[in-house]
Amino acid sequence: MIVVMRPYATKQEIQNVEKRLTELGFQTHPIYGERKTVIGAVGEKSLADPSSLSHMPGVEAIVPILKPYKLVGKELKKDPTVVDVGGGVQIGGKELVIIAGPCAVEGEEQIYSVAQAIKKSGAKILRGGAFKPRTSPYSFQGLEEEGLKLLCRVKQDLGMPVITEVVDTRDVELVSRYSDILQIGARNMQNFRLLSECGKTKKPVLLKRGLSSTIEEWLMAAEYVMSEGDTRVILCERGIRTFESATRNTMDINAVPVVKELSHLPIIADPSHGTGNWKYVNAVARAFIAAGADGLIIEVHPDPQHAASDGPQSLKPEVFDELMNVLKPIAQAVGRAI
Amino acid sequence: MIVVMRPYATKQEIQNVEKRLTELGFQTHPIYGERKTVIGAVGEKSLADPSSLSHMPGVEAIVPILKPYKLVGKELKKDPTVVDVGGGVQIGGKELVIIAGPCAVEGEEQIYSVAQAIKKSGAKILRGGAFKPRTSPYSFQGLEEEGLKLLCRVKQDLGMPVITEVVDTRDVELVSRYSDILQIGARNMQNFRLLSECGKTKKPVLLKRGLSSTIEEWLMAAEYVMSEGDTRVILCERGIRTFESATRNTMDINAVPVVKELSHLPIIADPSHGTGNWKYVNAVARAFIAAGADGLIIEVHPDPQHAASDGPQSLKPEVFDELMNVLKPIAQAVGRAI
Amino acid sequence: MIVVMRPYATKQEIQNVEKRLTELGFQTHPIYGERKTVIGAVGEKSLADPSSLSHMPGVEAIVPILKPYKLVGKELKKDPTVVDVGGGVQIGGKELVIIAGPCAVEGEEQIYSVAQAIKKSGAKILRGGAFKPRTSPYSFQGLEEEGLKLLCRVKQDLGMPVITEVVDTRDVELVSRYSDILQIGARNMQNFRLLSECGKTKKPVLLKRGLSSTIEEWLMAAEYVMSEGDTRVILCERGIRTFESATRNTMDINAVPVVKELSHLPIIADPSHGTGNWKYVNAVARAFIAAGADGLIIEVHPDPQHAASDGPQSLKPEVFDELMNVLKPIAQAVGRAI
Amino acid sequence: MIVVMRPYATKQEIQNVEKRLTELGFQTHPIYGERKTVIGAVGEKSLADPSSLSHMPGVEAIVPILKPYKLVGKELKKDPTVVDVGGGVQIGGKELVIIAGPCAVEGEEQIYSVAQAIKKSGAKILRGGAFKPRTSPYSFQGLEEEGLKLLCRVKQDLGMPVITEVVDTRDVELVSRYSDILQIGARNMQNFRLLSECGKTKKPVLLKRGLSSTIEEWLMAAEYVMSEGDTRVILCERGIRTFESATRNTMDINAVPVVKELSHLPIIADPSHGTGNWKYVNAVARAFIAAGADGLIIEVHPDPQHAASDGPQSLKPEVFDELMNVLKPIAQAVGRAI
Repeated sequence: MIVVMRPYATKQEIQNVEKRLTELGFQTHPIYGERKTVIGAVGEKSLADPSSLSHMPGVEAIVPILKPYKLVGKELKKDPTVVDVGGGVQIGGKELVIIAGPCAVEGEEQIYSVAQAIKKSGAKILRGGAFKPRTSPYSFQGLEEEGLKLLCRVKQDLGMPVITEVVDTRDVELVSRYSDILQIGARNMQNFRLLSECGKTKKPVLLKRGLSSTIEEWLMAAEYVMSEGDTRVILCERGIRTFESATRNTMDINAVPVVKELSHLPIIADPSHGTGNWKYVNAVARAFIAAGADGLIIEVHPDPQHAASDGPQSLKPEVFDELMNVLKPIAQAVGRAI
Repeated sequence: MIVVMRPYATKQEIQNVEKRLTELGFQTHPIYGERKTVIGAVGEKSLADPSSLSHMPGVEAIVPILKPYKLVGKELKKDPTVVDVGGGVQIGGKELVIIAGPCAVEGEEQIYSVAQAIKKSGAKILRGGAFKPRTSPYSFQGLEEEGLKLLCRVKQDLGMPVITEVVDTRDVELVSRYSDILQIGARNMQNFRLLSECGKTKKPVLLKRGLSSTIEEWLMAAEYVMSEGDTRVILCERGIRTFESATRNTMDINAVPVVKELSHLPIIADPSHGTGNWKYVNAVARAFIAAGADGLIIEVHPDPQHAASDGPQSLKPEVFDELMNVLKPIAQAVGRAI
Repeated sequence: MIVVMRPYATKQEIQNVEKRLTELGFQTHPIYGERKTVIGAVGEKSLADPSSLSHMPGVEAIVPILKPYKLVGKELKKDPTVVDVGGGVQIGGKELVIIAGPCAVEGEEQIYSVAQAIKKSGAKILRGGAFKPRTSPYSFQGLEEEGLKLLCRVKQDLGMPVITEVVDTRDVELVSRYSDILQIGARNMQNFRLLSECGKTKKPVLLKRGLSSTIEEWLMAAEYVMSEGDTRVILCERGIRTFESATRNTMDINAVPVVKELSHLPIIADPSHGTGNWKYVNAVARAFIAAGADGLIIEVHPDPQHAASDGPQSLKPEVFDELMNVLKPIAQAVGRAI
Repeated sequence: MIVVMRPYATKQEIQNVEKRLTELGFQTHPIYGERKTVIGAVGEKSLADPSSLSHMPGVEAIVPILKPYKLVGKELKKDPTVVDVGGGVQIGGKELVIIAGPCAVEGEEQIYSVAQAIKKSGAKILRGGAFKPRTSPYSFQGLEEEGLKLLCRVKQDLGMPVITEVVDTRDVELVSRYSDILQIGARNMQNFRLLSECGKTKKPVLLKRGLSSTIEEWLMAAEYVMSEGDTRVILCERGIRTFESATRNTMDINAVPVVKELSHLPIIADPSHGTGNWKYVNAVARAFIAAGADGLIIEVHPDPQHAASDGPQSLKPEVFDELMNVLKPIAQAVGRAI
């Protein structure tokens, strides 16, 4: 940590800050510049929050030097994490993993029809919402346990692992029984209790980035899950909120190389939510694979015009199939397979 | 709802959209312009999401006309809502309500000391966190039930209503027993299950705006609470996330007149979180009262340098007292009292 | 400047960075932490950009310590700057200055009618655009020199200083002849050539904040003007661009105390552009005065329905008059006069 | 245009709006819903800005239906524009065009060394700044005409077209004499006078997207250039400003398919400015090609550590060469060549 003193801070002010840092367990290393003094503080951070030093007279700013996360960073684990989700599917290895399926499980016919189509096109995991977090209390909220059961039957019949979202700490146990991966949605990325509960299951967790979360906050949310002993965390970029209104969100393509530099965890992308418009999904999906993402999660619906939710961003199965064909040579160009 | 067709959409495409709208229960009113046709669709929205029409050939855009909320809007209730929080305190009436107290309840001495100071300065409600949502799993997480009990004792001894945050659906019942107002934090603004559970208690709910939430989404979150039959919702602007990094968040002062135009619910402001720096709190607090807010929630700590959390943005009691003195003539200038 | 080395950077890497810093004219002060080494670099920054050090092996980040501006900051000038704009009007002193007038000068009758009305209500300076920067090439672009002449006549007849925008380096000399203050619009805040040319005139310059500019960048733009020897710069907050779409921009109320802390320059606010909606202007105008702004610039039009530009955000003269009456006690509450 | 009336607007209010619309030259088509009336307005927009209708009693909102641009849109020109920049190079055709070179021309040796390297790797156009828009007035501002002359010599010796930025209307003629393409930087995207002057030259113009500009505003800026009769406009995505601070800007990958849907103009990407960090450039460059961009503009410097500007985001020639090799199969996968 570096404490930056104001220009012309008094000697007494500087000494007081040094004294307080020493009390907090830091060793201090002042550097006297022409206009400003900075104090380097070395040592483990005590429980008291050192940012409170900013109340001391003469202090201009506190600059943290160490990253706030440990388990998700590369200092303790340099090799990329490969998450085994069961059924022979691994995320983060050489082979890219494409997850596809409808926004919401709507019924037996719908989910079987999609599952068969996407499997044929090469998807490895089936997605489908049973508990839907909807902006309006008057919108379709999902089939709940009935949806979970349908997903589970498809899983057994087609041999595909499934992923579904969990939105309440009280549902974690239930969803864990049916789903191979627990999905934590963007709006719950900083629902810290839900993060902890999911982490306690030790199941694979797909953690979507919050709409207004920095990459550092996203990694800190993953740290919550990992701090419960769960090592199987997959990050998912799904767009951030910006002023641009031509698309539902702005996909942060930069996040791929940044996450790859800061963390050993795999990262996939959700171009369906990240664009909000099926016409843009394939272009953005290709981009993320080219940038080095470990996979994709894409909404596919047999009849998007009649979808109960997220119709505008869902691909028809034939459009998804086209995408899969184009992804192959791109994956190969960046040293991956699909 | 208005369906905008692409330039030169074919007659057949237009007819197909009209047909689909009719199936969905709308009456259709096409308007043929020089370059584009638009179709006005009148009638109650059926469960199927009409946005899925965007998949139909020839459709360029869907423009909703009706607001997505009902209970929070002014169509059904024109008069401003005055929320009675007990202990003779009402939010939304002529008298402004100032809520103050520490970020977190840290212990008996701390909470009594703050409570007495702020009461003397004119605050009406005591705030204090017992369950703290922290960005890092390694930070202080609050005293939990012990904190609730301390708050409750202060309440009884000093006769001040109290407010504290609830972060988990499983804690709603517990927190309801101790707290006069349930606070839903910015990070949980779209934790829809938590919104519903809090609404079911029928207690006053303080709903902070999410960091990346539009005003419309914020009102929709309030609609969740109200749709459970809870009419006592207080909105709280606490800053949104923007590119500006000189302050922790950007306080959206525009939100005050906008909310007053769109909704009957009271709105207060949290300049402590909205700036993240105690030096800026008083200026911003004054601004919100001048703009027409119904109150404030402010972090005050007897010794901010040693605060367990949010020290940098906490006021010392004497600085809070100065603020209260300046607020009086400003309140008067805008027709309010304090 | 602080150079943060990566965890486990080698001794050789650290030495190479120290060597390079020495070449660049810095004195180096390494601090060896448990996991990371940081190198404090003291001394005048040479022309070569030290950020290029980030290419050196082992370097994680460069943290600047000194502010990039000199003339606008408080180190060299602690007292607030009071800008004399002529005609007995000063901005930044105890008395607040309200600037008002139409978006664009449209004709003699319009500009005289507004000028008389606002003068009667207490405005001190007349605004009116002659060169309009419009988003569309097909929109009304202003009366140009004819507009300047009209402004100048009103100025002489009513004895009010005038302000108008300059949008092109080639017009600086022309506009300077007619206008008491040169206004640089938000879209030109980083038109560095225009900043320099305006600075060379030594006339008062009103510098609007760019839509996506941080406060630091805004101060750097003011530094451009001041580095030409022009000391009469007035800052103007007019809203930044965020995801919120209920208003045209988001007014950054926090900017007032931040600018007052960082700079000696006066700051005023433009709630007309900052909200884009006349219904919200008065609330936000009151807020900025309460927060400590030195004045306001407000769009007033005798007949907003027929305005050639910015009608939706223009006040009718009677609504402006109401505002002026409410501002007086608020100004007094914060130790100012109007 | 659709005028949305407030719920329960009176009959008289509705008639007044219809009357005003008729005066403005529109035909009106009211649609009476259960709670709201909307009025469709068909006809050419007159010069008076119809948004001023929002001042009329009973009006809730104005919804434009027609796009504000004409020449850049696809209604009048469906086929993609291929911009011939001379020297046998075309942007927007099947062959992708990679532009590369240093941020700033620093001297003969530097520019020749880079030019030879990038040409060998397959770049088709040389970039290099002669007039640099810098955030600080104390930073290196470019070699100006000397830089232009150096660029021109390289162009003649190596047979590569060159591109350089123009930052002032007074320099347009000068820069046009030396450069094959006029670059308009992000900070000048809404410097409307500069747009017009560049358009008047009829030379190819590369228009970078502003940091806080929506895609629609960017297209409107291109409309300014085209409205002067210049048909050779190339759009360049270079990142927008968001809250994310891990990278200098956020590259909007969604912009590629959106621009391709709305406009016939070619679009390229600048991952150097869009990330601000050379380590992330190649991943993002690959992504844009996969998404369907027509080319790239990349900063390459023979010795980034000693670059006069933008060192941190400049690639060494060997890293650029690696990129070019990976781009080939990606281009092929999306039906392009390189």
